Amino acid sequence: MMKENNRPLILISNDDGYQASGIRMLMAVAREFGDVVVAAPMQQQSGKGSAITITSPLRAVEVKNEPGVKVFLISGTPADCVKLALDQLLEGRRPDLVLAGINHGYNVGVSTLYSGTMGATFEGLVHHVPSIAFSYGDYRTPHTDFSVCEPYVRDIIAQVLEKGLPGGVCLNVNIPYDKGPIQGVKITTTSMGLWRNEFERRTDPHGVEYYWMTGFYEDETPDDNTTDIYWIDRGWVSVTPCQVDQTARGVMGEIAELLT
Amino acid sequence: MMKENNRPLILISNDDGYQASGIRMLMAVAREFGDVVVAAPMQQQSGKGSAITITSPLRAVEVKNEPGVKVFLISGTPADCVKLALDQLLEGRRPDLVLAGINHGYNVGVSTLYSGTMGATFEGLVHHVPSIAFSYGDYRTPHTDFSVCEPYVRDIIAQVLEKGLPGGVCLNVNIPYDKGPIQGVKITTTSMGLWRNEFERRTDPHGVEYYWMTGFYEDETPDDNTTDIYWIDRGWVSVTPCQVDQTARGVMGEIAELLT
Repeated sequence: MMKENNRPLILISNDDGYQASGIRMLMAVAREFGDVVVAAPMQQQSGKGSAITITSPLRAVEVKNEPGVKVFLISGTPADCVKLALDQLLEGRRPDLVLAGINHGYNVGVSTLYSGTMGATFEGLVHHVPSIAFSYGDYRTPHTDFSVCEPYVRDIIAQVLEKGLPGGVCLNVNIPYDKGPIQGVKITTTSMGLWRNEFERRTDPHGVEYYWMTGFYEDETPDDNTTDIYWIDRGWVSVTPCQVDQTARGVMGEIAELLT
Repeated sequence: MMKENNRPLILISNDDGYQASGIRMLMAVAREFGDVVVAAPMQQQSGKGSAITITSPLRAVEVKNEPGVKVFLISGTPADCVKLALDQLLEGRRPDLVLAGINHGYNVGVSTLYSGTMGATFEGLVHHVPSIAFSYGDYRTPHTDFSVCEPYVRDIIAQVLEKGLPGGVCLNVNIPYDKGPIQGVKITTTSMGLWRNEFERRTDPHGVEYYWMTGFYEDETPDDNTTDIYWIDRGWVSVTPCQVDQTARGVMGEIAELLT
């Protein structure tokens, strides 16, 4: 079914699973441009970052095979989904685009580090396929209305399919929710911050303590007018170009001195 | 028991679990410098990157409480371990250092993205604690002999405890295995590369297919004489300074043009 009529092949994953309304919107828009293969996790994979599954095997279940659309459910992480699809599920073909999302909730600031949506996107990038993560600020699920995202998702897909992306770079796109009318698109940086008061301690019916991850996010760069959070808060779609490399090149000399 | 005599407090985690010989070596060296709290995963967590646990609660079991040494086993990822320790297990105190490892196997190149050892280390960094990941090329477990690592681990801990680290930077230290006598320490960059032929397809006793992650690593920057792999292959300990931020700042103008 794939690459009929030389249409682009678009691989889609996410971290919320195939039942999520975000991935359904992304599939619908992607179908306008080409053939679609979905490789989505069987279970909720929020917070899995770039985690991969090494110590247990993976399953892939094909749940849809129609002209132009195949859907596989994978028993692993978002990064597993993209890896397995690229290696085993595309009948030897190479996708023209990897898309992840649309995530229910922002992936900005330090959350980029924990984001399964970004994990899938980085996996496409590692394999040199133009890759884009889409996230929307409304994290209610499954009733979120993603229609405000549609024109931005369509436009960014069209531009990247036509022009490609610079080598070693993927896009992290975040669409504002409840910030008034959307003002347009800004190219942004990842803000820095962290989660505070992260855990809530409870006692189970047997008297044993356990901990729920919770807390509030503290933006540590609120005055930086280049960041994702800064522009989303002002009603703009943020597009952050991201790379795999995390080398802190600016301090290599300082570290050399420090260790001698 | 903590901060007796104003000794430094050192928080240690890993991804191989508390039974691994690598973390035992790291604990022994860290004890020379201060009081130690270990928060190690209950189960093998290789490949978990910066994954965190959101949809289920965590357990913490104290398995050792001696003067200067506490050990907790945590039912989560390496990043969970560091988060939970910082928020709940240090009796309100703040560690002077977060250490992860010594990992059984290198964490270099794109593996940095998947590394649970780095996940723990980035978590210390996010919380502004000087943080260091240690990895050794010998991945045999549990019988690996880590004695060759000891002087390098000791020296790097001593320097970082005395001088601190630049803001926003942690260290990813990799110690060569089977590359001849160790030549010294080099400050390096993260090499780029990817895994090829990643999955092996098998059929279970019930006739259903499943997939094991496997494959071989392809170094895509073999001629770059700044990288971790380049110097490890030549017998040097690599120290790569790493940051959380993955913004590809060099292409922001190019992306702005591309999307208009």
